[in-house]
Amino acid sequence: MKKDLAQYLAEPGKKVSLKKLTTTYPGEGEKEQGEIQLEEVKKRLSLLQETMYASRSHTVLVIFQAMDAAGKDSAIEHVFSGINPQGCEVHSFKTPSEEEYAHDFLWRHYKALPFKGKIGVHNRSHYENVLVCKVHPEYILAENLPGYQDVKAIDKGFWKKRYESIRNFESHLSENGVVVIKFFLYVSKDEQKQRFLDRINDQQKNWKFAAGDLAERERWDDYMNAYETAIEETSTEKAPWYIIPADKKWYARLTIARIIEDTMDGLNIQFPELPEQEVKELEQIKKTLSKAD
Amino acid sequence: MKKDLAQYLAEPGKKVSLKKLTTTYPGEGEKEQGEIQLEEVKKRLSLLQETMYASRSHTVLVIFQAMDAAGKDSAIEHVFSGINPQGCEVHSFKTPSEEEYAHDFLWRHYKALPFKGKIGVHNRSHYENVLVCKVHPEYILAENLPGYQDVKAIDKGFWKKRYESIRNFESHLSENGVVVIKFFLYVSKDEQKQRFLDRINDQQKNWKFAAGDLAERERWDDYMNAYETAIEETSTEKAPWYIIPADKKWYARLTIARIIEDTMDGLNIQFPELPEQEVKELEQIKKTLSKAD
Repeated sequence: MKKDLAQYLAEPGKKVSLKKLTTTYPGEGEKEQGEIQLEEVKKRLSLLQETMYASRSHTVLVIFQAMDAAGKDSAIEHVFSGINPQGCEVHSFKTPSEEEYAHDFLWRHYKALPFKGKIGVHNRSHYENVLVCKVHPEYILAENLPGYQDVKAIDKGFWKKRYESIRNFESHLSENGVVVIKFFLYVSKDEQKQRFLDRINDQQKNWKFAAGDLAERERWDDYMNAYETAIEETSTEKAPWYIIPADKKWYARLTIARIIEDTMDGLNIQFPELPEQEVKELEQIKKTLSKAD
Repeated sequence: MKKDLAQYLAEPGKKVSLKKLTTTYPGEGEKEQGEIQLEEVKKRLSLLQETMYASRSHTVLVIFQAMDAAGKDSAIEHVFSGINPQGCEVHSFKTPSEEEYAHDFLWRHYKALPFKGKIGVHNRSHYENVLVCKVHPEYILAENLPGYQDVKAIDKGFWKKRYESIRNFESHLSENGVVVIKFFLYVSKDEQKQRFLDRINDQQKNWKFAAGDLAERERWDDYMNAYETAIEETSTEKAPWYIIPADKKWYARLTIARIIEDTMDGLNIQFPELPEQEVKELEQIKKTLSKAD
């Protein structure tokens, strides 16, 4: 992986300290230039997806997690809008439904995996179960897990098992052709404040704002702790986490697109070549067809 | 609807004679100009979808049916690639699976409807059940329908009921906020031949060609009859069919995009406005937030 991208990888097995990481773009490039570059990367992504679709060997699963207003939705719009909509599937996960709560916590995410050849994008994901649920352990009770009828029972051991479930799930996926790429859009608390205010002031966006968003903001430090642990526990070689500085949207989008491009390049997928016998058959068909009316 | 678009509408209750309709672009505009116009229409579609997403009142379901190589896939790519991938969902229907055959013929298509606010695109659809199945009534036997264990039993009355099921299904959808738009990409037999040959000759595309495609081509007239009847029986005011000349891909794409634009314009969807009480609450939140760290 290119060095300027590798700096955002949460190295497997290493401690994560978000305070030591930046939320702002560290370089000197400019927005206009970045946007032009993004268009180029998007064209490459479109070709890479087309080849993957033809080969039907892999799925790419891109996971987005972040605090509110960090730019998940707009990143998804800007990174994936150049890809053939037939080859790209976005799922946005909300509060689980009754049916979803009546299954284990991975079920609805598993069900939402696209078939091979597609890029699947999960806007929020199974990680909510170790993020928002870590901050609000009372949410776990809704899962009605044997032995967990009381918040007091949800201890360190409980979370250890949950991270292990996630690691094993993703390891299984990667053994079976699903390439998992996980992005944490790391925005600063100040930038979130500004974006919330902008959202409230914009009549075309204020319907997006929920009073609950403010309550979650007050738990900022708890969320950062939850992210640190989740990333430490689940960033693996086959399903790595990337911590993307997200205060500058253009830079976050470009970096995300380039990391996906780099990862897909590494798969080295080729257009399928027809076996000799089939090529011969096609030649025969060509003759028949040429003579037909 | 604009006059130059309305000419492609299959008027409800009227006979359809495909032979009297053209597969070629009837006008004098040019490809380059058409492609520029398509980009403009795509921007409008993107905005219309965004507004619909915000209002969560409607779903748009766009159905594509056509003979092989008529350009369904590339039309979908070119018409919908400008829309936020989070607001657009494409389903491509293949031969039914065992699970799908174990349900009624509308089930898998119903299940694939997106939630309100999205544009759903069905690449092939429930219409296959009165198109390919009309040409190959033996396929119906796989549905294991009571009273239909023999092809001989599949008579005019059988198809009448099927069209009625479809009309009722779509009428129910439109009563519930789903706007159904159906496109038949009408390509000539000559143009299909040329595209088949091009496909065979292109090493990046020849894997797409299946020997079975040729066998279906031989049933061309039967297919045209099946399309005529299906369109006659199911083009309704609320779920109209459009017969799009498809020999020129750029013109077909532009026309499809414009018909969707025109239809969505007609819905007159507005961005949601917050009730006064909620606006007041937001003002309070703004104050709290401004003072917060």
